[in-house]
Amino acid sequence: MTTSAPVIGVDIGGTKVAVGIVDGDGRILSQQRFPMIANSTPEAALQSVVTAIDSIRSVSISQTISAIGLCAPGPLDPITGVVVNPPNLPAWRSFPLAAKITEAYKLPVKLDNDANAAALAEARWGAARGYRYVFYATIGTGIGTGIVFDNRIYHGRTGAAGEGGHVSIDYHGPKCHCGKLGCIEILAAGPAIGVRAREKFSSGSRNSIILDLAKGNVDAIDSHLVGEAYAAGDSLAREILEETSHLLAIWLGTIVDLLDPDVIVMGGGVAAMLQPFFSDIKRQLPQWCVNSRASEIPLLMAHYGADAGIAGGAALVVST
Amino acid sequence: MTTSAPVIGVDIGGTKVAVGIVDGDGRILSQQRFPMIANSTPEAALQSVVTAIDSIRSVSISQTISAIGLCAPGPLDPITGVVVNPPNLPAWRSFPLAAKITEAYKLPVKLDNDANAAALAEARWGAARGYRYVFYATIGTGIGTGIVFDNRIYHGRTGAAGEGGHVSIDYHGPKCHCGKLGCIEILAAGPAIGVRAREKFSSGSRNSIILDLAKGNVDAIDSHLVGEAYAAGDSLAREILEETSHLLAIWLGTIVDLLDPDVIVMGGGVAAMLQPFFSDIKRQLPQWCVNSRASEIPLLMAHYGADAGIAGGAALVVST
Repeated sequence: MTTSAPVIGVDIGGTKVAVGIVDGDGRILSQQRFPMIANSTPEAALQSVVTAIDSIRSVSISQTISAIGLCAPGPLDPITGVVVNPPNLPAWRSFPLAAKITEAYKLPVKLDNDANAAALAEARWGAARGYRYVFYATIGTGIGTGIVFDNRIYHGRTGAAGEGGHVSIDYHGPKCHCGKLGCIEILAAGPAIGVRAREKFSSGSRNSIILDLAKGNVDAIDSHLVGEAYAAGDSLAREILEETSHLLAIWLGTIVDLLDPDVIVMGGGVAAMLQPFFSDIKRQLPQWCVNSRASEIPLLMAHYGADAGIAGGAALVVST
Repeated sequence: MTTSAPVIGVDIGGTKVAVGIVDGDGRILSQQRFPMIANSTPEAALQSVVTAIDSIRSVSISQTISAIGLCAPGPLDPITGVVVNPPNLPAWRSFPLAAKITEAYKLPVKLDNDANAAALAEARWGAARGYRYVFYATIGTGIGTGIVFDNRIYHGRTGAAGEGGHVSIDYHGPKCHCGKLGCIEILAAGPAIGVRAREKFSSGSRNSIILDLAKGNVDAIDSHLVGEAYAAGDSLAREILEETSHLLAIWLGTIVDLLDPDVIVMGGGVAAMLQPFFSDIKRQLPQWCVNSRASEIPLLMAHYGADAGIAGGAALVVST
């Protein structure tokens, strides 16, 4: 229980703004979703955020809001509150978002990238609650990660720390959109699962329902269909998800050897799909790190699902 | 300047114990070396350390020693001060070294692994002085690393954090003695440089003085001869060291993306040999991380050379 006033958490994406009122225990008291105008002028994009905040404030008029926490895709600078140049927020280039929101609402405002913010929410209120050294990964279209020590996001020198999705486990590997080779994101995020599945079919017919789910069109196969097929007991889908899990175990070996975390938390749609393989990942992890006690580290599913951004934004500013 | 009393730093290796009196500014006031009996009984190994400490105390009888800091190869537990099972200290298995030294001298004692300790000495007094987030690597026969935040070693959950030498950059790569594949240690430490050189000769005669330095015996080629040849202007030796530097740049990309350090410091014999290539590593680093400001991170040669362990041990216990 806490007596601190509720805050507003704002989750800014390329197509939507989700806002919520969040209390000091991380409970989302109310929430709303709005479209995000991300490819117009900086002002229009800002207006999308303001519209969302105004709306959630109007439904909670009886409550005193103590602060606003924003999260958005990076690159951004959490120290200055400036959105630098996120590919899916093209309207904003070196845009002082936190300053603009502070000006508009005269409240304390913080901004961080969505993975860092979600990591903090998990550490404060979610699956990693009570753990000191937290490694969090959200696995979906990409892989975003956050490092939280003692309920504080580890930012490093410039706020760019915790970019675990671009750890390369194979410097001869496929080229990531970031320019590096063999990043875990290009090997194990959602699109990689689709690529892996399509390759299976391209390299010969297989006894699998995945192709049926794609109505016979190999090009239509994506990670969602693989997940659907796995849920229906398809063995090729299982094989694909096992291969993906194996790569994640290798990657987590690096994380554990560098950070020796108290807990590993994974969220996002692909992590949810891979949850049946968490025990496989845990079993393989000790082979991929020198840490002799790696098997003791819990690997947990995130507490916040689609609301991770709202909770994350709130976690940035809630007082403890 | 500091007024704190000097401490004793003890560097325990597989064949030697180096001890020194170190003041609060990290100056080594005197030092000695003794043989280490590492493969006999636990007591005989302990006696090697005690002999060294007794000796350095006797030459500094006029000075009050305030604490003793020990460093040794891992695995060890810096939290409990227990040496777990280092391959090159076979006499000690789960040996409570810190407790034994405390008992013998009635002084505050700390124990940490040599890379962590050296990292702390660099952060407090050496090349990383004044930097907040420090990544340190010692490159010699192996690669040991240490992470220091705010002049404190980052230990993680069990004290096993900062094992950066076993970050794999190629999960299809050669097998490291740790059991993993493609660790940077197996790819870029001293022995790897020897392997790389021998492979060059095995795959055809080359115009290089390396083979002459090895008196025509390919099997006698090691990293030292490569270094010697490079110093004499040999182009094959340069090629080998460039290839090694390239791999280190890839590896540091992972480090930077996860930790975004304020500074990277490298020490050890192989790092000294690679110092002419530090600028190459820095130039390549931005291609191997998403951190857009990676090029700003200084890559510095360690301040403490062969005395890193004495300074490191001292850094563990000196008061600030």
